[in-house]
Parts: sequence; structure tokens; C-alpha cells
Amino acid sequence: MATATSPSHSPFHAVDLIRWKCDGGELSDAQIDWLIAAYTGDEIAEEQMSAFAMAVRFCGLSRRELESWTRAMINSGERLDFSGLSRPTVDKHSTGGVGDKITLPLAPLVAACGVAVPQLSGRGLGHTGGTLDKLESIPGWRASLTNEEMLRQLEDVGAVVCAAGPGLVPADKKLYALRDVTGTVESIPLIASSIMSKKIAEGAGALVLDVKVGSGAFMKTQDSARELAKTMVDLGRADGMTTVALLTDMSVPLGLTAGNALEVAESVEVLNGGGPPDVIELTIALAREMVAAVGRDDHDPADRLASGAAMDIWRSMIKAQGGDPDADLPVARETDVITAERDGILRSLDALAVGEAAWRLGAGRARKEHAVQSGAGVQLHAKPGAQVRAGQPLITLHTDTPERFAGARVALATAYEIGDSAPEEQPLILDRVT
Amino acid sequence: MATATSPSHSPFHAVDLIRWKCDGGELSDAQIDWLIAAYTGDEIAEEQMSAFAMAVRFCGLSRRELESWTRAMINSGERLDFSGLSRPTVDKHSTGGVGDKITLPLAPLVAACGVAVPQLSGRGLGHTGGTLDKLESIPGWRASLTNEEMLRQLEDVGAVVCAAGPGLVPADKKLYALRDVTGTVESIPLIASSIMSKKIAEGAGALVLDVKVGSGAFMKTQDSARELAKTMVDLGRADGMTTVALLTDMSVPLGLTAGNALEVAESVEVLNGGGPPDVIELTIALAREMVAAVGRDDHDPADRLASGAAMDIWRSMIKAQGGDPDADLPVARETDVITAERDGILRSLDALAVGEAAWRLGAGRARKEHAVQSGAGVQLHAKPGAQVRAGQPLITLHTDTPERFAGARVALATAYEIGDSAPEEQPLILDRVT
Repeated sequence: MATATSPSHSPFHAVDLIRWKCDGGELSDAQIDWLIAAYTGDEIAEEQMSAFAMAVRFCGLSRRELESWTRAMINSGERLDFSGLSRPTVDKHSTGGVGDKITLPLAPLVAACGVAVPQLSGRGLGHTGGTLDKLESIPGWRASLTNEEMLRQLEDVGAVVCAAGPGLVPADKKLYALRDVTGTVESIPLIASSIMSKKIAEGAGALVLDVKVGSGAFMKTQDSARELAKTMVDLGRADGMTTVALLTDMSVPLGLTAGNALEVAESVEVLNGGGPPDVIELTIALAREMVAAVGRDDHDPADRLASGAAMDIWRSMIKAQGGDPDADLPVARETDVITAERDGILRSLDALAVGEAAWRLGAGRARKEHAVQSGAGVQLHAKPGAQVRAGQPLITLHTDTPERFAGARVALATAYEIGDSAPEEQPLILDRVT
Repeated sequence: MATATSPSHSPFHAVDLIRWKCDGGELSDAQIDWLIAAYTGDEIAEEQMSAFAMAVRFCGLSRRELESWTRAMINSGERLDFSGLSRPTVDKHSTGGVGDKITLPLAPLVAACGVAVPQLSGRGLGHTGGTLDKLESIPGWRASLTNEEMLRQLEDVGAVVCAAGPGLVPADKKLYALRDVTGTVESIPLIASSIMSKKIAEGAGALVLDVKVGSGAFMKTQDSARELAKTMVDLGRADGMTTVALLTDMSVPLGLTAGNALEVAESVEVLNGGGPPDVIELTIALAREMVAAVGRDDHDPADRLASGAAMDIWRSMIKAQGGDPDADLPVARETDVITAERDGILRSLDALAVGEAAWRLGAGRARKEHAVQSGAGVQLHAKPGAQVRAGQPLITLHTDTPERFAGARVALATAYEIGDSAPEEQPLILDRVT
């Protein structure tokens, strides 16, 4: 029987596919191709796609459906081609965490090992910062490049971090915005296909995934993170792309900073041979995976970091996009210091709370159209396991708008604990999925 | 953390409520009130409500949530008040079936027992016909009355069948249209609250539900029909309305006709003391429930039907709404006869197939804005259990547009079976739920 909504010339009816999925049915490749194309072309209403996404949240997608869904998403737009470059390309994706500035030192470091690194990144929404927001705190730096500019920079410099153009997986842009407001983000097949469609369309030869686990990450448990990692690795391999995933801890923020300019400064410290041990460890671990994935493990990233080669490429990379690597970074107008209330050992420091505090201070945005404060954020003076003394600064809050301090303090009120015994040590890298 | 969509002054965020329901949470009364009011006021996007409805399809509503949801739906509009009438009021609702013209003889029959019957009805969409479409085949009859006209007719005539005004449960009008295109009709709490919010807002003192079971009904199994009946009876009683439900068979069409004027003619036969036994049986059974529900079982509906008292009220009821009860009913321009291909016993006759054939012939509509053909439909010459002879007419198809015959014949191709043994007898009334 006909339904009231689909154009009569279409081969399928959206409501039939929604019902079929609800009843536990599997969609054919043709049905999936039609669904994605018709949605991208505005032939299927937003309320129908949100109902379908919710049905997927409850009923899942089979492996075949998921591969077909991902392929249909990729086919909604253009696919980049790096085959003309003189060196292999490798991409990296993090599922997002608090203080996760790893792309900044990592891209130049891998480029310093003779591999080209195209990093198409996004802006932040909510408690995890966006790589482009961080780099935009560098005076003059611009995120938008044409495909030709990106290719030239990859050939000349070896690394580029820029905004994904509108032609890349338009189906995902539309679907992600819908999922964000309809409670349908929380679906492993939809998360995996969203990430992997973009990464496959971006066209690198290999991909290393950093799947975060813990309070500050989207995946709160190792089991769910491992399932997401495995799903994404399978999708990459099904498309012929070498894909590896690391599961890494996100119960504690990475490094000592969360905020745009604060994180750039910390990344530059790492490139200068300093910086917090966890940021160094993860940068080198991911770099080793990336060079190994394209067979260039003749270079040891640790050496290339120590030699200053990565720093040279950082400077070239920033300059190539109009930025001044020697300029002073923006500093927030006001600071507020949270001090330790007793002597003891810092036992915990919750990543989500730190991320939310940074967001409340102005480092992140509540709506896409909002601007971020470059100087705003959270600076940590101790990480779990550190000895602290009463009155010692634990956390410095930075913002241009001091009325935000109160909200950040609320977010941090129960974020840490000072005790008498050392906390259990938690490894940073929890697992590797291939 | 704030979401990107809800107005900042609202106490809740739609996406939070969707997530909470997905995670198995129960919404508070305040959250439900807000959700329904904000949706009716266009503050919540259609795609958010469809996601919520899909979450309800999978996770259900608790009894408290359902009562609160139904109350919030009622509160979205006006509530009628029949307390000024000199006699008690009772309402009836059928969940819809093929050939279900019972309202037509039933309303005047119950009125003939001294009870007022306000029947606010709808138009048909899909394979089940609408009561208003049927009555509109009577020349001059009009479905739209003001509340004052309706009250006056109830007092003067005792029965009224008319269109529900736009002020009655506007939340349901919006939500039902959304559910229809998003695969979220199939949810017992949403079906129950949709029906019961309207019936409670209509304000009768008691309600008798006819919950259909079988191929031609929305509920295909007795278990699901019983669950729906019980849910609706509970909602009615929670609001203080005497509510009873009968479960009745809809595997075979009711009576011998499916189509607008064809069903009016059959109803008039019943009021005249003739007509098919199943239509008479169900009309009297429902009438007995209705008069008993308001304590007027001093009158036996069977007597009032036999005496012609119901027919008198039918004539007054039609005249009061501008109709001519003596006018000839519209007749379709063309007919086509399906004959028995062999001697034997008619073993089955599928209600859904007959409903679809009537729909294809023009008796129903595919879209709300379409008109129906008053004369179109299906006329049955035998019901299961009847002896038939090869070449004897089994089914006559009626339409103004003969190009529709082929589609109706396709729908009916496997709709019946002629065999050598009698089919198992199926009672018409399967259960009673109080």
C-alpha cells in the first residue's frame, strides 16, 4: 500500500525501510544506497531519518549493512587522491578527549619520518576541543585550504592540518547535525561509519585510530571502545586501507592543559624536547604506528623528535598556512587559582570535569556559530600520583570573562581527590586493535 | 552541558529526554507536560519528536508515564462537557477494520435506548474506511458541526456523528501525522494514548471500545489486541470514565460490503430489520455494553432495533445534519464480477485483501487531501462457510474508474479459498476486557 510521503517515482518508501529495520530486518545494498542518496538530496524528511537512526541505535546494522552504509556515505561526495605524491600518506583520527592536542606535535613528527600526513580536522563542540580551534589561536594561521594548496603543502612540507571541504561526505555533515539533536549519536555503527566514511574519502594510504576510553571520552568502558575500534578497523580494511587502532586512557586529561592557546604552547614544548610525559609517550606511540603502517619504520620518531626535525616541520607547516610560529600566543585576561586544601597525594583528576570547566571558561562552544576564546582554559599543576601541600596551586583557570569562573569552579568541585595513599597506576595505552 | 537546539529559557532539553528514554529512564510528569506542550507549540523539532517516539516504540512507557502523557495530550486542547444534557452520554471507538460500518446503526440504536451518543469520527486513510466518508455519500449530509449544534442535536435527537473540531487534542493531530510517516505508529502506549486522549477530551460519561484482531486489523494477534484493550481500559478508568472493551474478529470483513455508499445501504438494511447476521450481532452486543455502562440496561437494544425506534432516530440524525435519508445513494459507474472457479465451500476470505481492493477501487484515499469515490467498493456474495458453485458470483467490484479493476483483482487473487470441507467456526466476539 502506498504511503503518504515518498515521491511516487522513488523505488522505496522511507517509512517501509524504517519499519523493516525496527522489525529486525536487514536492508539491501540498493535500499541503503537509496536511503543515503535520497536523504542527502533532501527527498527524505529529517524526521524520517531520525526515526531510522533511532531504529539503528536499537537494532544495529549487520556487517554487510554497515559496509554498504559507509560506502554510500563516501559516494555522497568527492574522494581525495594523494597517489601523485612522492611519499606515502598516513592519517590519524582521535575519537576525542580532554587536552588531546596530540595532532599538533604528531603531524610534523610523522612528516619528519618521510611520510605525508594530511589531517582534515574539525572544530570543537562540547567538552572536547577542536584541533582547528587550537591552531587558530596562532596569529595569522588559516584553516581553509583548496585541495591544490593542500596537495602542494603535503609535497613541500609533508604535513597539513586543515578544515575538511564541503565536498567531503556531505551525507555525514547532514546526518551528524541531525544525530546531535535527536539522541542518536550513541550508536557504534553510526559513529564508526561517520568517522570511517570521512577518513576513507580523505584518501590516505593508511590510518591510525586513537580510540579514547574513560570519563572524558565518548566511550566510557574498554568493552565499548574496543567494539568501536574493531568496527572501524574492519571498515578500513574492507576498503583496502591499512588500519590500526590504539585504545588509550581518557579518565585523566592528556598533559597539563585544556584550552586552545594553552594546548598549542604545550605542543610546542613537546616539539622543543620538553612537555608532559604522557603527551610525549602518546605522540611517539602513534607516530610509530603511523610510520609502520606505511612501511617507513626505518625512521624512529623518538630520534626525529629529539633531533628537532619535527620542530622544523612544525614551523614550516604553520608558516605555509599564514601563521607566525614565533608570535606570542593569546593570553586570557583573567586567571583564578584553585589550591590544595590539605597535604597529601593527588589521587584522581576527572577528565570530563576538566573538559567541562575549560568549556565553561570559553575554550569551547555551545553552538556551532559561537566563537571560542583563544586564551581560555584550564592549566593543571599536578597530575594523579603527585605529592601536594596545602595551599599549593592545583589548577589555574583562564578566561577573558571572569563571570565564568564560578561555573568552572562548580564543574571542578568534585573533580579531584587528595588522599594519603598513591592511586593505582593506569597505563596510558590500554590495547591495540588490528 | 547545553545542547544546540532547545531555547535557553526552557526547563528541559529535548535531546536529554530522548537520551534518557533510550537508556531506559522514566520521565517525570513535568518533563512529559513540557515535551507535549513544547511539541504542540512547535518548540521541539519534528525530528526530535520522531526520535522520541521511536525510543518509546522500543522502550515503552510506564503506567504512570502513559497516564501523564495522555493527560498532557488532553491538556493540549479543549475538553467537551455534556453534563448539561438531560440524559447520560456514552461513546464508542473501534480500532478500525474492513467493512466496519457498525457506528451507523449503533449510534441511533443506543440513542433509542435513552442514552445520548456523541460520535466524533475521522476520515479513512489506507485500507480501513472512515465513518465520515461513509456518511458523506448521503446527499446533503455534512460532517462539520459547531459544539453548540452538536449539543443541540444530542439533546433533540440523541445521536450525532460528526467531525472532531480542531480544538480537540491538537497534540495528537500533529503527533499522529508524524508517526504515520516515521514508522512509529506501531507502539501500544502511543496508540492507546492517541485514542484515549481524544475519547476522554470528547467528554462522554462512558466508553465502549471495539478492539479488532486479525489480518484486516492493526492488531494481528489476540495477545497484542488484549494488551492494547487493557491499556486503554486502564487509561479510561484512571480518568474516572467507565470503560469496557470487546475484542472482535477482523480476519474476515464485517458484513457483505466494504465501501462508502455500499456500507450505508447495508446499515440501513440492518436498521430496517434485515442485513448480515455478523453486523446485527456486533451492533447489538456493543449497544448492550453501551447502555449497561451508563446504567440504562432497562432497554434491550434488540427490541429497539426490531421496533423501528432506531430507524426513526437514524432518519432524524441524518436530517439534522442536512442529509436526505430517502435520497438514492450514489452508485459506481462500472462493476466487475469475480466468480467461483469451482464448486465447493468458501473456506476463507481475507479482510486485509478485501480492504485493499476497496481502497484500490477508490473507496479510500492514499493521501489526506484526496477525495474518495462514494460508490466504489467491494460487495461480497458469500462469506466463509457458504456453499458455492462454479461460475457463481463471489465478489462484485464497484468503481467509477474501470482502470482500477486490475489492481483490485490482484489484491483479491489469493484472498479466498474454495475447498471441500467447512472452515473452523470463528466466534465474532473473542473476549471482553474490563
